[in-house]
Amino acid sequence: MTIETVAIIGLGLLGGSVGLATMEHAPGIATRGYDRDPQVREKAAARGIVGEVCDTIDAAVNDADLVILCVPVGAMEAAASELAPHLKQGAIVSDVGSSKESVGKALSRTLPGHTVIPAHPVAGTEQSGPEAGFASLFTNRWCILTPPEDADEEAVKTLSEYWTKLGAKIEIMDAKHHDVVLAVTSHIPHLIAYTIVGTASDLEEVTRSEVIKYSAGGFRDFTRIAASDPVMWRDVFLNNKEAVLEVLGRFSEDLSSLQRAIRSGDGDKLHDLFSRTRRIRREVIEQGQDDERPDFGRKDHN
Amino acid sequence: MTIETVAIIGLGLLGGSVGLATMEHAPGIATRGYDRDPQVREKAAARGIVGEVCDTIDAAVNDADLVILCVPVGAMEAAASELAPHLKQGAIVSDVGSSKESVGKALSRTLPGHTVIPAHPVAGTEQSGPEAGFASLFTNRWCILTPPEDADEEAVKTLSEYWTKLGAKIEIMDAKHHDVVLAVTSHIPHLIAYTIVGTASDLEEVTRSEVIKYSAGGFRDFTRIAASDPVMWRDVFLNNKEAVLEVLGRFSEDLSSLQRAIRSGDGDKLHDLFSRTRRIRREVIEQGQDDERPDFGRKDHN
Repeated sequence: MTIETVAIIGLGLLGGSVGLATMEHAPGIATRGYDRDPQVREKAAARGIVGEVCDTIDAAVNDADLVILCVPVGAMEAAASELAPHLKQGAIVSDVGSSKESVGKALSRTLPGHTVIPAHPVAGTEQSGPEAGFASLFTNRWCILTPPEDADEEAVKTLSEYWTKLGAKIEIMDAKHHDVVLAVTSHIPHLIAYTIVGTASDLEEVTRSEVIKYSAGGFRDFTRIAASDPVMWRDVFLNNKEAVLEVLGRFSEDLSSLQRAIRSGDGDKLHDLFSRTRRIRREVIEQGQDDERPDFGRKDHN
Repeated sequence: MTIETVAIIGLGLLGGSVGLATMEHAPGIATRGYDRDPQVREKAAARGIVGEVCDTIDAAVNDADLVILCVPVGAMEAAASELAPHLKQGAIVSDVGSSKESVGKALSRTLPGHTVIPAHPVAGTEQSGPEAGFASLFTNRWCILTPPEDADEEAVKTLSEYWTKLGAKIEIMDAKHHDVVLAVTSHIPHLIAYTIVGTASDLEEVTRSEVIKYSAGGFRDFTRIAASDPVMWRDVFLNNKEAVLEVLGRFSEDLSSLQRAIRSGDGDKLHDLFSRTRRIRREVIEQGQDDERPDFGRKDHN
């Protein structure tokens, strides 16, 4: 099973990066792209983020061996319905969505008889749109595949090899487990960041100007995450409700416990936690999952 | 009033950066440093982070025109008591602590008859110790002075000029207001980061290895903040209890409200907030308070 042509549906940060990474790391594979927004198609064509930008979804997918949906998770089903009649026999349909159980179900329901292998490359930035993608986004990042139980093994292997070419490391996981893991490592961190940035803007005692001026004390990190695409993230929370609420419950309990420690002046409890969390950072860096320079190497430190 | 000699008490990230910044930007001012830990003094001397590392607090402060306490806020009072007998007549005593009301009170109580002007340069990294400081830490960052009501104006001006030389922008603020502002822009962000990193390590459903592997989804940002110095941060929470609990209450309310929106599938509410927070990021960047490159310019994107 060989991929000669890949169709990328949705040409934002992820779609654009898939296109650019394919052209750079797997130049033998033809890349076709489609976005339902004509302005996005125009910008994508101007930047050359895929080999060919098509004006219809039909033209993009009709001879593709692999179709990758790079749209918000809430838009996956509609996109799949639209492309279903045009799919080539034997094509693999995959995606890059951040929640996998709901997306897997939606795609299987919409594309009966087709090979559906959901995937999630754990990578991104706070930017979005056709200007935002870049070829190295997936380098040394994990791409999680969540094939259904009866998935074609050959197709899983082909998709794994494709992502490996793009620079990613592959993990196969049950969709339900994926959704809990990502709730912890991605969804709740985003929800918390959005919340604290909102809280800070709404306080009466502290002006917006003060919040911005003194953001280097830690807050600015959260503003980056809270600048992520609103539609994408709305859909993630609506589509991974169960796992998000479960992890959020644990987080709230832990926060209440620290609140009590502060109120009662229990310095040891605070110190114990603050020492424990330091070790996690070291492991993240040791495993190549972050920049080891202080403050991520922000340029004001050079 | 001219500063000819500055004494830096505590030679960690902040003390070292004050020393290096003074030597680079105000080379006419002699820098003396002291740390109660002999190993820190040795490393500080080897790295040359101050002009002279002294073996006693007496030798460091006895002819200093400005003394800057760069110790955890819980250790300020003890350090002030220790240096009090050796202070030169007319010297200004200041600090770099993250909470100002408690520190201001402690210093005024311990140093009656001396000129105390508390200060807080809003800058730092997740690293600590005598190896961590660097000369540009304060460049384009705000330094907040919280002089007592009866403070000597000349001393406030002298201290402002000193920090301006080190690259900082100056703001004068009431200590109580400072503590609320910093609770929002620094203390609560740290508390939340410590909490989520702790929550993630304690979940039974998700392994530590998974948390680290998939941390690029957002979590890794929080691990950086949660790697900050445990003693410094324990002291901040114990010394700014009132403002921290107040802002934490607001944050928890806002988080509960989002939790309800997720549970009830209220996508509009989520989308509204997520769009609002995006604008704050732009202002942070426009005002020079963060690196505008995607993902802070982390090196895996180059």
